[in-house]
Amino acid sequence: MVIEQPAWVQEAVDWTRSYVTDEERIRLTIALARENVVREAAGPFGAAVFERGTGRLVAVGVNSVVRLRSSVLHGEMMAFILAQERTGSFSLAAPGLPAHELATSCEPCAMCLGATLWSGVKRLVFAAHREDAEDLGFDEGPVFAASYQYLRERGIEIVGGLLREEARAVFTLYRSRGGLIYNA
Amino acid sequence: MVIEQPAWVQEAVDWTRSYVTDEERIRLTIALARENVVREAAGPFGAAVFERGTGRLVAVGVNSVVRLRSSVLHGEMMAFILAQERTGSFSLAAPGLPAHELATSCEPCAMCLGATLWSGVKRLVFAAHREDAEDLGFDEGPVFAASYQYLRERGIEIVGGLLREEARAVFTLYRSRGGLIYNA
Repeated sequence: MVIEQPAWVQEAVDWTRSYVTDEERIRLTIALARENVVREAAGPFGAAVFERGTGRLVAVGVNSVVRLRSSVLHGEMMAFILAQERTGSFSLAAPGLPAHELATSCEPCAMCLGATLWSGVKRLVFAAHREDAEDLGFDEGPVFAASYQYLRERGIEIVGGLLREEARAVFTLYRSRGGLIYNA
Repeated sequence: MVIEQPAWVQEAVDWTRSYVTDEERIRLTIALARENVVREAAGPFGAAVFERGTGRLVAVGVNSVVRLRSSVLHGEMMAFILAQERTGSFSLAAPGLPAHELATSCEPCAMCLGATLWSGVKRLVFAAHREDAEDLGFDEGPVFAASYQYLRERGIEIVGGLLREEARAVFTLYRSRGGLIYNA
């Protein structure tokens, strides 16, 4: 099984700049979500892993469930897989690496929240809320207040709801185009 | 990123027989877990996807976190990825497919339990319990009674604790060999 981004991703992303603020980081993930809908008719979700301090972009991910025919390949999972490939480590918190964080256009589902814990990122920032994805028809799985508490107790900072309306607008676009709800 | 099994897996597994009972299915996953420790010094976890009715083996997975340097690649995730590749569908519950189930040598972590929900399997059967993995030093993530209830309400049957002592024996072997606790 080969896991790779769609060809347009490399060109759609500016790899040379720094993404300094939360808004800049989230805006990139929403742009990826939008491009994924427009170019692939694929799930309206994008994610990216950054070096927390410098804002250097390490890897991005777009939802690839339908394109690669794998229920595992949410945007966040793509970003983790490719970030760890790039750093050559199964943990983004490995000795010698700077602190990393995940930005994502939507609150992670149960699988992706679990993966966040194992990935080694020290911070999670997201745009749309669970309810927004559920309004669209997606299931988000078993995530509870205690789930967030569990991650926080292990040193992961979590911030949600940034640019929420911009992320929701991509969901509206997806609905208007009759996008597939692959886990309804 | 190329996701593939270690070379020995193809030979270690009998692909021609049917795995009719729960014990036969679980025994295969424990054998894979043991081989993964012995041959790779890798995480003591194995999993397999079966056609529920016939017991036909669709795909197996061994923990590949360290080998492939990816925190995502637990045994269950490997099995889901490769089963969906084999069936050509992002859901093992797609129209035209028989019902599928996942067997795994240890209770799934939070990520893998979420992935179970998206995979399309209709049944989950596991051997060792969460506490057994935690005794070894592994974290299992935010999984609660409500998590299981969430999956059950969506039609997934869950059975745990089969051949638990045999699965625990592989954990003991892993510890005796000084195996890495990659998410401690």
